[in-house]
Amino acid sequence: MDLQLDIDNLLADNVGSENGLRREDLDGLAEDMKKFAGRIEDQRGKDVGFMELPYDETLAEQINCKADKLRRWCRNFVVLGIGGSALGNITVHRALNHPFHNMLPIDHPGRGGTPRIFVMDNVDPWKISGLMDVLDGEIPQTAFNVITKSGGTAETMSQFLSARELLENTDGTDPAQQIIATTDSNPEKSLLKRMAQEAGYDTLPIPDNVGGRFSVLSAVGLLSAAVSGVDIERLFAGARRADEACRVEDMWGNPAAIFAAGLYLQHQNGKPMNVLMPYSEALSGLSDWFCQLWAESLGKRKDLDGNDVFRGPTPIPSVGVTDQHSTMQLYQDGPFDKVICFVEVGDPGGEDQPICSEAGEKDLEYFEGKTFGELFGSELQATRAALRTKNKPNCTVRVPGVTPEALGELFMFFEYAVTFSSYLYNVNAFDQPGVELGKEYTYGLMGREGYNPPPQA
Amino acid sequence: MDLQLDIDNLLADNVGSENGLRREDLDGLAEDMKKFAGRIEDQRGKDVGFMELPYDETLAEQINCKADKLRRWCRNFVVLGIGGSALGNITVHRALNHPFHNMLPIDHPGRGGTPRIFVMDNVDPWKISGLMDVLDGEIPQTAFNVITKSGGTAETMSQFLSARELLENTDGTDPAQQIIATTDSNPEKSLLKRMAQEAGYDTLPIPDNVGGRFSVLSAVGLLSAAVSGVDIERLFAGARRADEACRVEDMWGNPAAIFAAGLYLQHQNGKPMNVLMPYSEALSGLSDWFCQLWAESLGKRKDLDGNDVFRGPTPIPSVGVTDQHSTMQLYQDGPFDKVICFVEVGDPGGEDQPICSEAGEKDLEYFEGKTFGELFGSELQATRAALRTKNKPNCTVRVPGVTPEALGELFMFFEYAVTFSSYLYNVNAFDQPGVELGKEYTYGLMGREGYNPPPQA
Repeated sequence: MDLQLDIDNLLADNVGSENGLRREDLDGLAEDMKKFAGRIEDQRGKDVGFMELPYDETLAEQINCKADKLRRWCRNFVVLGIGGSALGNITVHRALNHPFHNMLPIDHPGRGGTPRIFVMDNVDPWKISGLMDVLDGEIPQTAFNVITKSGGTAETMSQFLSARELLENTDGTDPAQQIIATTDSNPEKSLLKRMAQEAGYDTLPIPDNVGGRFSVLSAVGLLSAAVSGVDIERLFAGARRADEACRVEDMWGNPAAIFAAGLYLQHQNGKPMNVLMPYSEALSGLSDWFCQLWAESLGKRKDLDGNDVFRGPTPIPSVGVTDQHSTMQLYQDGPFDKVICFVEVGDPGGEDQPICSEAGEKDLEYFEGKTFGELFGSELQATRAALRTKNKPNCTVRVPGVTPEALGELFMFFEYAVTFSSYLYNVNAFDQPGVELGKEYTYGLMGREGYNPPPQA
Repeated sequence: MDLQLDIDNLLADNVGSENGLRREDLDGLAEDMKKFAGRIEDQRGKDVGFMELPYDETLAEQINCKADKLRRWCRNFVVLGIGGSALGNITVHRALNHPFHNMLPIDHPGRGGTPRIFVMDNVDPWKISGLMDVLDGEIPQTAFNVITKSGGTAETMSQFLSARELLENTDGTDPAQQIIATTDSNPEKSLLKRMAQEAGYDTLPIPDNVGGRFSVLSAVGLLSAAVSGVDIERLFAGARRADEACRVEDMWGNPAAIFAAGLYLQHQNGKPMNVLMPYSEALSGLSDWFCQLWAESLGKRKDLDGNDVFRGPTPIPSVGVTDQHSTMQLYQDGPFDKVICFVEVGDPGGEDQPICSEAGEKDLEYFEGKTFGELFGSELQATRAALRTKNKPNCTVRVPGVTPEALGELFMFFEYAVTFSSYLYNVNAFDQPGVELGKEYTYGLMGREGYNPPPQA
């Protein structure tokens, strides 16, 4: 694959023996990592399915066909989803579409005739009533893609009920055309699937062995991507290349394994925080996606043996160069308690612009004849070097550009990395029991039968 | 003031003795906090000026007058700034304007005839060329507000040079009308001020004793706010109320002092991470603003006595309910290493929408007759109760709504809180020496005279 991992600045050679790892430390994990790679192979396609997603050509064709049809009438495409049913969609849309997609005229080459894209990942009335304002008069030209694997997520199902009534109460609409339900294909498991069958909505499947945060390359992430003009075959191609690279048994030949091992050892070494800092505003969504993947997969009360361990590193989202003028002061000069993971892109996209031909001031002459791309790249180099000078461990994931292939590689790389990490931490990467109590309390407060509000409320 | 702080869930009574504080622990800081309040009074209006900003009625009038004039011809208002010259602007715009401001027709009541607002807080060519696409054909109707206190910030000055050339090369433009420079008013201290004087640009001042991250209530944050229709007098009114409340010497009567003391003691107690989690998407910008304020002010290598201490808590941005489906799994079940600070708003804004009149399914009946606002509020209550049940310390800052007054209070509250915190940590809240090395390396890489690239590059 094109993705490359550079861990030099995690090592003692570069950041000193107190804060750096020795190659021997990593070597000490090589046998375990080999075993873990074998374990992943054993689970592949059985209880764990994310790595098989980009091979489903039939699904890709089906999605492309649906997307083509949708684009014929649809001016607004609204994703109703939250968490793993929203973050992947946002990441793909922000990375691969125009930075101001929804503001461009529909026939602008930067938008290419595709609908406006909205991802409603909250139930904040402010945002919901705001959406009503922008959809006003265009409800018959609006598609709602309801995404929930279980078919019971409160936020998503409440939005779905509201959208359904909106369609029923608006002239010229056809709910069966305008609602697409992406959910478990087993009606026994998903209320949404049953409702879709009864009402005749189109449905798309979420495989049983793919959890929300690993689902971006399933129908969950693909439909909004295809509708907005993303070439999902190219996403798949990148993901398949990364799948090959991250299956390798030998740790030193497997970037996902090395990434997991390096961050794990740095956690043992007193650095429980992992900052993801892409130098690419297009990849700012990837930071949030990574935070969910990392936090939900590794933040666990119980280990695999059932002991209370209250484990997990803390992921932190960031973006360069912006955060050089924010959190970077702390990351440079504060405690030695975190690892900065840069994502470096060869070509950040767009058309590189010259800064100026003539500055007219001596102190600004250094900008003359330079481009914003050069400044952007220099700032990453400089920040990385400064962290290294200050013995602050960091590593870099490099991709050639913000292309569908690169994004496919990044998704698959991090999904493998978190799976390897979960074995190192000895926790289950694929459940999220910690949020159940809050859900039950919510049901209780909302008066759902059989649930109690919190005792302290 | 209307803002209220609830620290009950920081206390041992509610989250257990291992993870909770005793009131005596807090009492133990009361004398110090009183001294610190006195120290702030001594600095007031001398080396520290943020608390005096909302009393500058002359500036508010001047800004309103400029904003009125701008709105007559300006269809796009572009802020060129980064860090403290961008985050406040973004926070105010996101909180107090329509969630889809830039997408509404200019005469929509939700936009009220105001220009589109863009804050260019990065030099990513992808974003810059994207902006060129949306401004295409409207350059003569576009104002550029260049904001840099020092007048030398590389990101901002490069954007300024580029915007200046764009205006010079476009018919029908007038740079002297379209560029407003917000910078130190002393031309000896700011190259931008000197350039503005020569070229005849309008300028606005940044007081000497107000640093970037404390400047949102100066001209830095106010012009874009006023242009977009925000009532800056109401922002000021809230900030003044908070100023009064946060000057109180008695710690228990001063919410900023209590907030600082509570988080500091929790840091001593093994919880170095502070998550700001507003349950309000309109306040998502406040999370990022808080992270800069916290990280840059408290993340320091040296203490006030000049010792190497590498100090500072780590702020983490979040937003509810969205992140209940992301990082919350870790916050609930992971290590006892963080404090969650909720921001609760009585009225989240917008028009509260009914979820549905008829769900048609037994499992969804609990939504019938309820509103999104009720669901939203229940989820905050439930999440807070679940954290408490699990002995995870948290606290709540309450404001009645997302109004200009509330936002003014929040800004002033957190600015006081970080100042109190800096005394507890014994660091200088008002400098940021840690990012200098990266700047020097950047200059070196860009070929600026007198600077060297990093040795490792």
